[in-house]
Amino acid sequence: MRCPQPPPWQAPSADDVRARAAWSRIAEPGDPVALRLIAALGPAEALTAVRTRRESVVDRFRPRLALLDIDRDLHLAARVGARLVVPGEPQWPAGLDDLDDPPYCLWVRGPGDLGAAMGRSVAVVGARAASSYGTQRARELAAGLAQRGFAVVSGAALGIDGAAHEGALTGDGHAVAVLAGGVERTYPAAHDRLIARIAETGNVVSEAAPGSAPMRHRFLQRNRLIATMTGGTVVVEAGLRSGSRNTAATAARYARVVGALPGPVTSMTSAGCHEMIRDGAAVLVTDAAEVADLVGGIGSDLAVPRPGPARLGDQLDPVDRRVFQALTGRCRRVEQVAVVAGLSVAEVLAALGRIELAGLARRGDGGWGTASASRR
Amino acid sequence: MRCPQPPPWQAPSADDVRARAAWSRIAEPGDPVALRLIAALGPAEALTAVRTRRESVVDRFRPRLALLDIDRDLHLAARVGARLVVPGEPQWPAGLDDLDDPPYCLWVRGPGDLGAAMGRSVAVVGARAASSYGTQRARELAAGLAQRGFAVVSGAALGIDGAAHEGALTGDGHAVAVLAGGVERTYPAAHDRLIARIAETGNVVSEAAPGSAPMRHRFLQRNRLIATMTGGTVVVEAGLRSGSRNTAATAARYARVVGALPGPVTSMTSAGCHEMIRDGAAVLVTDAAEVADLVGGIGSDLAVPRPGPARLGDQLDPVDRRVFQALTGRCRRVEQVAVVAGLSVAEVLAALGRIELAGLARRGDGGWGTASASRR
Repeated sequence: MRCPQPPPWQAPSADDVRARAAWSRIAEPGDPVALRLIAALGPAEALTAVRTRRESVVDRFRPRLALLDIDRDLHLAARVGARLVVPGEPQWPAGLDDLDDPPYCLWVRGPGDLGAAMGRSVAVVGARAASSYGTQRARELAAGLAQRGFAVVSGAALGIDGAAHEGALTGDGHAVAVLAGGVERTYPAAHDRLIARIAETGNVVSEAAPGSAPMRHRFLQRNRLIATMTGGTVVVEAGLRSGSRNTAATAARYARVVGALPGPVTSMTSAGCHEMIRDGAAVLVTDAAEVADLVGGIGSDLAVPRPGPARLGDQLDPVDRRVFQALTGRCRRVEQVAVVAGLSVAEVLAALGRIELAGLARRGDGGWGTASASRR
Repeated sequence: MRCPQPPPWQAPSADDVRARAAWSRIAEPGDPVALRLIAALGPAEALTAVRTRRESVVDRFRPRLALLDIDRDLHLAARVGARLVVPGEPQWPAGLDDLDDPPYCLWVRGPGDLGAAMGRSVAVVGARAASSYGTQRARELAAGLAQRGFAVVSGAALGIDGAAHEGALTGDGHAVAVLAGGVERTYPAAHDRLIARIAETGNVVSEAAPGSAPMRHRFLQRNRLIATMTGGTVVVEAGLRSGSRNTAATAARYARVVGALPGPVTSMTSAGCHEMIRDGAAVLVTDAAEVADLVGGIGSDLAVPRPGPARLGDQLDPVDRRVFQALTGRCRRVEQVAVVAGLSVAEVLAALGRIELAGLARRGDGGWGTASASRR
């Protein structure tokens, strides 16, 4: 018996690929005019329309169209080993197709198979101004997820994002950094080396053309990619107003699971996480097993419930337990046990028989006492 | 117009009051046989039945009945200034009437009006083996609740309970300690002074007759009183297996609200709180305002949502914000702004007009720039 084969893959035309590269240069991520044109005409035809039509609605693309040089952009990308990935290709993360405003294309560095990796993936995000508690948790969480075979996606920012990437690399996992600027830029500069390491084994990704600057609204746009290319998003630390809450809200909007890690209530960097949990916008998670449980496939990743310590006598029924608790190391007469337990002598005798059978009581010279605690 | 008067209060008969005192001595709290007898015959008749009937079902009361001395118990209580409060009296906490297994009576020390105080009350409970993080939070939380006019009820145990009582006293609030043993016993001994201070202004309460020892199953029984006499229960710290989770479960079973305070995920004393929140058994709460919001009356105690810091340009629509973010302190020509923002020159001009009106942009010699951040 052979496994079912995926449907044959239809390569996008070379014109469409080049046109998508152009769109990532001339239009902002998620630009509604660009998206409507591409949806109606296809990327190449839409580009021609902008070049030839006179309608004022496409005027917003003219200032950048005048400066467009697709070959230069492709050359810039090639210099850092980046390739273009477009919708419909196997390496395209299927989750992005859910977006109302999908990226025109992705510029992708690194040897990783981005499309395959996203099939089992988690976004681990959080505040830039993170505490050491938060960065340690992000590192542990990402390492644990990587060890469980999850690709870990984040935004390469200072604080939680960087720690999550580091943890994923520590766990020999597939690390994916999604940047707001061009893939050849390493932003923030302090993460120069980290981004280079991610590009060596995982993927560094951007929807913006090479050379694009990481502007603030592009960070918000970038967050929608992190939220939808993954199976779920975990916020490790977030203030009351944090970009990572925007990522989480987008994940929820597109029916991805959202988790948040709690912290000390005295820490303002956990206040956003607490508010999300309190409002039902996120599930409280404390470790990688619980995140895997939340995001992972049914049956395969169920977190093992952590049992509390068992206590002697737990298995007894309520009346027997009352009698058991009335016993001490020193022997007591049955009548004394009856007074202490508040039961009749007959009830105490019956219970003592059952407790003795359970190995928890012993009959001595002066009456009844507890059996050694070692016999459970 | 006169306010409606409460129905005239019918004093329980002296026989019934004495009988209830006797029941609290001869039967364990929540004993099903005692409860059925009292429900069927009334407390005095039920006591007579135990004394006179031969049925073996009442044999469980005989060992203690032989030792019963009601006057001695009343004398013991009077020596520590304790009074007997029975169902139907104004000082009886109305919430206890919800219980399937209500107490036979309450032995109450302290000048506080227990029945009135429970009308606006919260149980603050948690682990004995608490961390300093937990005890500090319990103290703050209880003080904040006391300042908001809530009576704070707890179990006088080491750790969270003791800290909650201290906080309530600090906040000049009505502190209520519910003990598992007799009210004249100060258990644990380390809380000798604390329990005495509670008895000076609030109430120290027990359903067990004076002289009763604080046995383990009595702690569980005691928890049901804490859970139902109050409007809600907050667990500050709890291990995976903690008596305070039993209190919380009882509160939920009797439709009281349950809150739990999060903490570091690395702290096992917060693991029970996290599990309760994760499982939906408790609402995450971080401070007294949120607890008041959860437990308090509608309208009067709503927690004020904490706003995040506002950012310049927040009030602008998305296109205007893109233009605003393309501005810098140095002036830029409109064409440059159009390239940076990815918009047409006409769109940029229109947006700049609106942004200037909002006081966020200024027109200089060389073009447009941001207005001073002080002008919001």
